[in-house]
Amino acid sequence: MRRTLFTADHDAYRETVREFIAREITPHYDSWEEARLVDRSAWLAAGKMGIVGLAVPEQYGGSGELDYRYRYVVAEEIARAGTTSFGAGLGLQDDIVIPYIADLGTDEQKARWLPGMAAGELICAIAMTEPGTGSDLQGIKTSAVRDGDDWILNGQKTFITSGIHADIVIVAARTDPEAGSRGFSLLVVERGMDGFTRGRKLHKVGLAGQDTAELSFDNVRVPAGNLLGEEGGGLIHLMERLPRERLSIAVSAISCARAAYEWTKDYAFDRTAFGKPIGDFQNTRFALAEMLTEIDVTQAYVDNAVLAINDDQLSAVEAAQAKWWASELQKRVVDRCVQLHGGYGYMMEYPIARAYVDSRIQTIYGGTTEIMKEIIGRDIAKS
Amino acid sequence: MRRTLFTADHDAYRETVREFIAREITPHYDSWEEARLVDRSAWLAAGKMGIVGLAVPEQYGGSGELDYRYRYVVAEEIARAGTTSFGAGLGLQDDIVIPYIADLGTDEQKARWLPGMAAGELICAIAMTEPGTGSDLQGIKTSAVRDGDDWILNGQKTFITSGIHADIVIVAARTDPEAGSRGFSLLVVERGMDGFTRGRKLHKVGLAGQDTAELSFDNVRVPAGNLLGEEGGGLIHLMERLPRERLSIAVSAISCARAAYEWTKDYAFDRTAFGKPIGDFQNTRFALAEMLTEIDVTQAYVDNAVLAINDDQLSAVEAAQAKWWASELQKRVVDRCVQLHGGYGYMMEYPIARAYVDSRIQTIYGGTTEIMKEIIGRDIAKS
Amino acid sequence: MRRTLFTADHDAYRETVREFIAREITPHYDSWEEARLVDRSAWLAAGKMGIVGLAVPEQYGGSGELDYRYRYVVAEEIARAGTTSFGAGLGLQDDIVIPYIADLGTDEQKARWLPGMAAGELICAIAMTEPGTGSDLQGIKTSAVRDGDDWILNGQKTFITSGIHADIVIVAARTDPEAGSRGFSLLVVERGMDGFTRGRKLHKVGLAGQDTAELSFDNVRVPAGNLLGEEGGGLIHLMERLPRERLSIAVSAISCARAAYEWTKDYAFDRTAFGKPIGDFQNTRFALAEMLTEIDVTQAYVDNAVLAINDDQLSAVEAAQAKWWASELQKRVVDRCVQLHGGYGYMMEYPIARAYVDSRIQTIYGGTTEIMKEIIGRDIAKS
Amino acid sequence: MRRTLFTADHDAYRETVREFIAREITPHYDSWEEARLVDRSAWLAAGKMGIVGLAVPEQYGGSGELDYRYRYVVAEEIARAGTTSFGAGLGLQDDIVIPYIADLGTDEQKARWLPGMAAGELICAIAMTEPGTGSDLQGIKTSAVRDGDDWILNGQKTFITSGIHADIVIVAARTDPEAGSRGFSLLVVERGMDGFTRGRKLHKVGLAGQDTAELSFDNVRVPAGNLLGEEGGGLIHLMERLPRERLSIAVSAISCARAAYEWTKDYAFDRTAFGKPIGDFQNTRFALAEMLTEIDVTQAYVDNAVLAINDDQLSAVEAAQAKWWASELQKRVVDRCVQLHGGYGYMMEYPIARAYVDSRIQTIYGGTTEIMKEIIGRDIAKS
Repeated sequence: MRRTLFTADHDAYRETVREFIAREITPHYDSWEEARLVDRSAWLAAGKMGIVGLAVPEQYGGSGELDYRYRYVVAEEIARAGTTSFGAGLGLQDDIVIPYIADLGTDEQKARWLPGMAAGELICAIAMTEPGTGSDLQGIKTSAVRDGDDWILNGQKTFITSGIHADIVIVAARTDPEAGSRGFSLLVVERGMDGFTRGRKLHKVGLAGQDTAELSFDNVRVPAGNLLGEEGGGLIHLMERLPRERLSIAVSAISCARAAYEWTKDYAFDRTAFGKPIGDFQNTRFALAEMLTEIDVTQAYVDNAVLAINDDQLSAVEAAQAKWWASELQKRVVDRCVQLHGGYGYMMEYPIARAYVDSRIQTIYGGTTEIMKEIIGRDIAKS
Repeated sequence: MRRTLFTADHDAYRETVREFIAREITPHYDSWEEARLVDRSAWLAAGKMGIVGLAVPEQYGGSGELDYRYRYVVAEEIARAGTTSFGAGLGLQDDIVIPYIADLGTDEQKARWLPGMAAGELICAIAMTEPGTGSDLQGIKTSAVRDGDDWILNGQKTFITSGIHADIVIVAARTDPEAGSRGFSLLVVERGMDGFTRGRKLHKVGLAGQDTAELSFDNVRVPAGNLLGEEGGGLIHLMERLPRERLSIAVSAISCARAAYEWTKDYAFDRTAFGKPIGDFQNTRFALAEMLTEIDVTQAYVDNAVLAINDDQLSAVEAAQAKWWASELQKRVVDRCVQLHGGYGYMMEYPIARAYVDSRIQTIYGGTTEIMKEIIGRDIAKS
Repeated sequence: MRRTLFTADHDAYRETVREFIAREITPHYDSWEEARLVDRSAWLAAGKMGIVGLAVPEQYGGSGELDYRYRYVVAEEIARAGTTSFGAGLGLQDDIVIPYIADLGTDEQKARWLPGMAAGELICAIAMTEPGTGSDLQGIKTSAVRDGDDWILNGQKTFITSGIHADIVIVAARTDPEAGSRGFSLLVVERGMDGFTRGRKLHKVGLAGQDTAELSFDNVRVPAGNLLGEEGGGLIHLMERLPRERLSIAVSAISCARAAYEWTKDYAFDRTAFGKPIGDFQNTRFALAEMLTEIDVTQAYVDNAVLAINDDQLSAVEAAQAKWWASELQKRVVDRCVQLHGGYGYMMEYPIARAYVDSRIQTIYGGTTEIMKEIIGRDIAKS
Repeated sequence: MRRTLFTADHDAYRETVREFIAREITPHYDSWEEARLVDRSAWLAAGKMGIVGLAVPEQYGGSGELDYRYRYVVAEEIARAGTTSFGAGLGLQDDIVIPYIADLGTDEQKARWLPGMAAGELICAIAMTEPGTGSDLQGIKTSAVRDGDDWILNGQKTFITSGIHADIVIVAARTDPEAGSRGFSLLVVERGMDGFTRGRKLHKVGLAGQDTAELSFDNVRVPAGNLLGEEGGGLIHLMERLPRERLSIAVSAISCARAAYEWTKDYAFDRTAFGKPIGDFQNTRFALAEMLTEIDVTQAYVDNAVLAINDDQLSAVEAAQAKWWASELQKRVVDRCVQLHGGYGYMMEYPIARAYVDSRIQTIYGGTTEIMKEIIGRDIAKS
């Protein structure tokens, strides 16, 4: 289907992103995967090229670009190049953390943090999940108690994207045990604060280069000036930003699905078996036709969702729909593409193999498929 | 997702259609289903209200309305009212036959047939399929031999929608056995021509009120003036119009899927089991959430396809994608909705039961799902 | 896979059944479907041939045959002949009602009812479901109050198989409103009792010849001697017999799935498209291979379950597994077979079309798929 | 369902296997996975305990145990312990290579190789697949030319299980380019032969500890005495043994699926979310019920297949059915189990994560699912 989403400006930006990845990411990517850590040089280069910190206002050194289509372009190019371990951290920074700071931060906070974030000098994380607490935010046990001008923070967080690199971490903590869902706040912990330690870099199924870690807070003194947003407003702040995070995953998912399809289509017409390209077997032809259809259909919805968020019109339910549907599609498509690659699909030197292990998390983080269906289903029950 | 497809004009037309169905169709629908024939009165009423013959130019008594969104409105309202047996014949007339006559007809032919078609006085059919020839148009055996000013037509056609009512039938016949794919032409056979007989009204799984029949042509003399389009151009004429037919099925499919979902959502919150509405069980909630997501995602694609056909930009591949995806979705959704209705879903007095038997043909006629995948897959192979 | 289930005795019985169906059922079946009622002559003939009442002890005129494999033979032959509307009533009589009377009946009750049941003279039904009460037996509202030597029965039942023909009906009623799940009893209502009326014969999606009806009980005086089993033991009596009912549906389901597969395989190699049998297309070949595999795999489980019930070792969970899995398989297979038949699959003159409409109830009655999963899932939670 | 497959002897053997794994495999398994190589000590220990070389005749130091149920016991215990990287090499040795030598070897060959194979001192591989030749055996390009008492072997093989460890490799090579399918033979290449080199240990999606490699043969002189079976009979030898290999994968697949289910069931009742065990949510309960049903149903078929192979009655079609169905089931089940584990399912320290990456190859090696469907489908076409 003709796609009217992008303008010439987006196309020009795409060229920039594509060159950036080809020059700064792809040549090093295998070694970063092996080392299980994307190098900070990638972030700095991204800062120079305006690939990170898009939404940071110009006064703080960013492009002040709120049109989400630019982020879509980045996601597509990351997917095309098969460099998702870099994309995951970047997406966290741009789609999740920067909006927190930009929306909720005081002028002082913005001046303190945003320029480094836009420059790729400051890598950020957000710490919600705890051991034993997945999507159930109200089960958060990390707590902070006011002590003079500081908060004393104690607790454990896990599955923290960019947990090793992170220079600043937005931590969701219970600040008033009596106040129920109004008793949570967001505190910004900075590298070097006493009592803030990082646990093991977790060994994951995929996204090897993406550093996921456990974080510990043992009587960390967080200055009151590091409270982000309203005291007691933490859960609301989190929930208001979940649609953007979920759309971000949907955008990455549809982009990765299409990249996997394209690699597989090429493979199917290169590779022969029983004397003809495997793409000429009816089963392969149907598999490709089915995947292309699913991808095109889903892209129509995701594209609409991107236009909607640009207009501040994307509901939580729509973001949940886009998130679970596109991420399940990605899993389905990538798995079929592996199968069409035969034994090569199991070899990590093929991009499709990496796509396979990388994709498995997409239906889990940012709210599992099951949580998405709960959100949608409860909304239906109310309507 | 916000839907920007329709304007106030379409909304106003929707009111007209809704009232028309409530007044002229719904009260009689059960008896037509029982009789296995929609009454001609429905057609005449549709003619008066501008529900049939939308695309007939004003000079021939129609509205000259080529915006396909009006047809979408009709499809949605037909689906909502559960009157698909009427919708099927109507869709054939407006989405398939009228464009043939309007595009390919001579002035004389248009003047002769279009006014009756717009008035609902002339019901039309198109006869492609033969016993033993489904989607394989080149296998057509019906033949016509030139004899003076006439064509002598011989052959059998089957599965002909509106086959009992049809006043005029566009027949695909081989007119030059030597010319391969360029040897087919379209001949318009009219009620009363000698040798033109109708076989049994076929007893189908569903669409009871929709008259499907076998047609026989035994030395039927068809005047040369009833040749539609170019001699030898029959297959091309057919193929050029297939995208519109397929989009028509996709539009009907998504509309029926949404109607089934809506009935089922209402049922789920009305009906209790084990002391609570069945909609409150997590399994039901997830089923509804999954169906709504699939429907919303698919609607985005179908809506785009409708805008594309309005701009004459819908490719054969895109129409094929919309057709198979939306019709398979419809089947899937309606089947799940039956299950959520429990025993009531098996009782024909419930609209969902009728939707179940009616829907099964959607993945078959107008080109099976398998043919659609062939079309898409071959295009992929070429790209 | 080699199948060791049947012995020469079963093979011989199979011949008898096959001849019986060919002679007594198939020639009349279309007209019974049209009339929406299997004729009583079928039952009488079945009685003469030992096709009904297998489990009735010899002293009461039956064969006293408790080996369930004979019932499996009947189910397979019914399926092969596409005469499921007859099979449904027969299954009810032999797999459900006769065990109730034989297990729970007093000598007097057995002498009174079993001979007629074995002769096909007495057609039986069991009435559990009520409008608004599906699988939730505790929601039963029909009640009986003791009055001297009688029970006064009041209530409504729906979806009653053989509801029109039934000469005796086992009715589940609440006999002690205070006693919770121990407050239900089974009462046998006989044709002609005052206040017992039959409602409409329900118009169903399929199983046209099988008479399903609503039953009303308006102050029906049921003699105390018609109490079946223990007073207050009704729910336990029902629950103890559900595994047999569910296995019966599983056996029918796998048999119907295999029959549909066989018809479709034959069709695929008879029917040509684009110059070759459709069975020679890879998509068809894979579809047949997938269906055959699923059927063979499932048959292994159902065969084991039949041997287990013969040894009185089939658990409620295993019956639930067999029931939902086999009936969902049947639906899936029959639907794919319709698709492979193309337009012919939608025409009721083809057995596959009838199989399609007949099969839809299988995942619903006898406990829906969802109820089966609840049963299995709760057992897992306890283990 | 009660399972009658195993006797007390098998149960006793199971204890031995379980202890062996707990003592010799599990304590080292993580380090072998990290090193991407199972240590040879595991093989030697297996040799001592009679875990490897089961089918080696007693005269050659094995147990001469041809009852496949003992291998089933091993597969189940390997799966339960999550040590599939060790199981894969073991399965190759016992289910594939040993039968080749035992069935086709001369007395001299058997005396030369079998004792070491039974002792775990000789690790074996079989080399069929070549770069660019997957399931299409006739496309093999590796060739051997007779030169005096030797064969001169040239070619490349890839995806060779135990390729690094292998002391002897059965190589399929073309020995007569004119003879079509009768022109292939099997040659046993031994460690240390000149011109036999091993390529990289391939980096795979999973089965990290299992050494898969490319092998090169550059003018390797293989003595004529190392020809295994008949000259020109290579393809037939391969094809005759494929059913056993495929059953071996099916047995591993169902065992791994059940192990994954068991871990997940335990997890679901340990782990809480929103205040209750996740196993108490209906969606989880249904997921567990669905998986248990699929596993139980499939196990019935695989158990039958094992009894059939014991009786030399397992057909190629049945082995193909068992292979594709059970391996696809395994993939489906393991994937759902990962999802139920949430974020933990993506962490390699959880057995389910390892099961996820390990399982992906099962539908590919030993003949892809697509090849299995071809085999079944062609057999249907002939029947």
